[in-house]
Amino acid sequence: MRRALELAERGPAGGPNPRVGCVLLGPGGEPIAEGWHRGAGTPHAEADALARAPLGAAAGGTAVVTLEPCDHRGRTGPCSVALLDAGVRRVVYAQADPNPLAAGGAERLRAGGVEVVAGLLSDEAAALNERWTAALRLGRPWVTAKWASSLDGRVAAQDGSSRWITGPAARADVHRRRAEHGAIVVGTGTVLADDPALTARDGDALLPAQPRPVVVGLRDVPAEAALHGHPEPVLAVRTRDPHEAVAAIAGTGATSAFLEGGPTLVSAFLAAGLVDEVLVYLAPTLLGGDRLATADLGVRTIAGQRRLAIRDVVRLGDDLLVVARPVEED
Amino acid sequence: MRRALELAERGPAGGPNPRVGCVLLGPGGEPIAEGWHRGAGTPHAEADALARAPLGAAAGGTAVVTLEPCDHRGRTGPCSVALLDAGVRRVVYAQADPNPLAAGGAERLRAGGVEVVAGLLSDEAAALNERWTAALRLGRPWVTAKWASSLDGRVAAQDGSSRWITGPAARADVHRRRAEHGAIVVGTGTVLADDPALTARDGDALLPAQPRPVVVGLRDVPAEAALHGHPEPVLAVRTRDPHEAVAAIAGTGATSAFLEGGPTLVSAFLAAGLVDEVLVYLAPTLLGGDRLATADLGVRTIAGQRRLAIRDVVRLGDDLLVVARPVEED
Repeated sequence: MRRALELAERGPAGGPNPRVGCVLLGPGGEPIAEGWHRGAGTPHAEADALARAPLGAAAGGTAVVTLEPCDHRGRTGPCSVALLDAGVRRVVYAQADPNPLAAGGAERLRAGGVEVVAGLLSDEAAALNERWTAALRLGRPWVTAKWASSLDGRVAAQDGSSRWITGPAARADVHRRRAEHGAIVVGTGTVLADDPALTARDGDALLPAQPRPVVVGLRDVPAEAALHGHPEPVLAVRTRDPHEAVAAIAGTGATSAFLEGGPTLVSAFLAAGLVDEVLVYLAPTLLGGDRLATADLGVRTIAGQRRLAIRDVVRLGDDLLVVARPVEED
Repeated sequence: MRRALELAERGPAGGPNPRVGCVLLGPGGEPIAEGWHRGAGTPHAEADALARAPLGAAAGGTAVVTLEPCDHRGRTGPCSVALLDAGVRRVVYAQADPNPLAAGGAERLRAGGVEVVAGLLSDEAAALNERWTAALRLGRPWVTAKWASSLDGRVAAQDGSSRWITGPAARADVHRRRAEHGAIVVGTGTVLADDPALTARDGDALLPAQPRPVVVGLRDVPAEAALHGHPEPVLAVRTRDPHEAVAAIAGTGATSAFLEGGPTLVSAFLAAGLVDEVLVYLAPTLLGGDRLATADLGVRTIAGQRRLAIRDVVRLGDDLLVVARPVEED
């Protein structure tokens, strides 16, 4: 299963499908093939592994999969049937499929006489597809809000200049995390002020996975905006309502969105309770003034504060990344 | 010397005098007495140790001291002379005395035929009196500025309520650090808004060392203000000029000041370049709005930012403490 989890990690995060890995063992327990899912429209991990196995070699063998084999016919056939057809006698999986449209694979396999062992390393497997799993639970894409600020909470100096508050290590971390999300979201104000490319890059090179650029707001995106050079088509959502924006992002198939700003849009998402994780890149600098990471969040008294819990604190060069999530209210 | 450093730590930090420890060894290297300095007006560490040694026992022996023995007659006689009178033949010390009024002890000892070894564990010794040493270099008290804010840089909700943004572990840390400073400084606005006691406490109990409370600003401190219950007399400095405030604090003999707010006073100190360390207690919460930890710092463009370097990041319960210091400009 450790090997299957490693294989799963090769797949793309942030898309409509989870990352899944599969190892096929022969009747004697010897590894005969490996597979993983490469994203929507490509074979599932089990089908990928079966296609790589010598013909008939899986008969009487075991399939080790990070996610319960699916039982629905999407763009590919149900994996439960493929495993039965291949004569696999035993299936070991980690995470139960949380998707009601795809679940039921274990049941069909058992009905077909296959021994099914569930839950091995299920926490690790769920963590691998944490945002995808949460999106199914939430019924909307997972939203990560990110900003970079000074230690006193400012995102820019008085004249609006902000390049660069954080250093290269923090900026590289942002790009890695962009690539792990299905969409990247900014307001029209940010497009007009900063003209961002919204790509996920390693230096000047594009990373293999690119989030879909989404622009939210009522103003037009200029024809010459840098984000038109993005490898994925730009989605412009003409609204100021974060709920409408999230629905539009869900419509692209993205199960996660990386919300980069500006302060007005981030604040609207926060006030609407539509942020699942906050990434605050803190630069050791003080700016003062009125260019803030957040605007009015509708918090009138301290009792109304938006409590978070810190999940992680990471030193990135001279900077600090604080990862925090809203505390579930009782 | 390790033992001498331990002894030194028993002394009070933040006062006009450094913390010093001393171990006396007999002619055969056997420990015969220990001493440490208990604060201004009390015997120096060497004198304390000599007073505890059996009469004549130090003759032909060694004095191990964390700071170069002083050579000036303040409220106590010069330690160099006391060691010579006791017949000590060897003196080992860590930090050279950075105080021009007191230095010269090593020279006098050598002139008196004593073997002098300097610099053993000098970094540890200097760290023990870091703020005192820096104050001598700066020619003014060391200033630590502290604030507690939300992750988006707010110190209170819109209505001004702020109890409590940070949790008990962070608040206890603040009290410990208050006790390590000679003065605690707030603006009159903070006194009028929050009516703080400005004592250093462990729960309800006062800590042994109490910083002198200093109130800066043009408004009157109300006669019924809680800080009049402080064990040390209140110093009211009627100015808005941080330079004048610092001069008044220096006049009390304090070599370090703990600046607690509010935002106007902290910003004035920051803008004047009079802050040597910043303690930001970050609570994992979001508040939005316009109650900020800092006001205008005079930073117009990003090139004018007040760069700091992070010295330490400490998790305190649910909260985070970021310790940072201004980066010395070239």
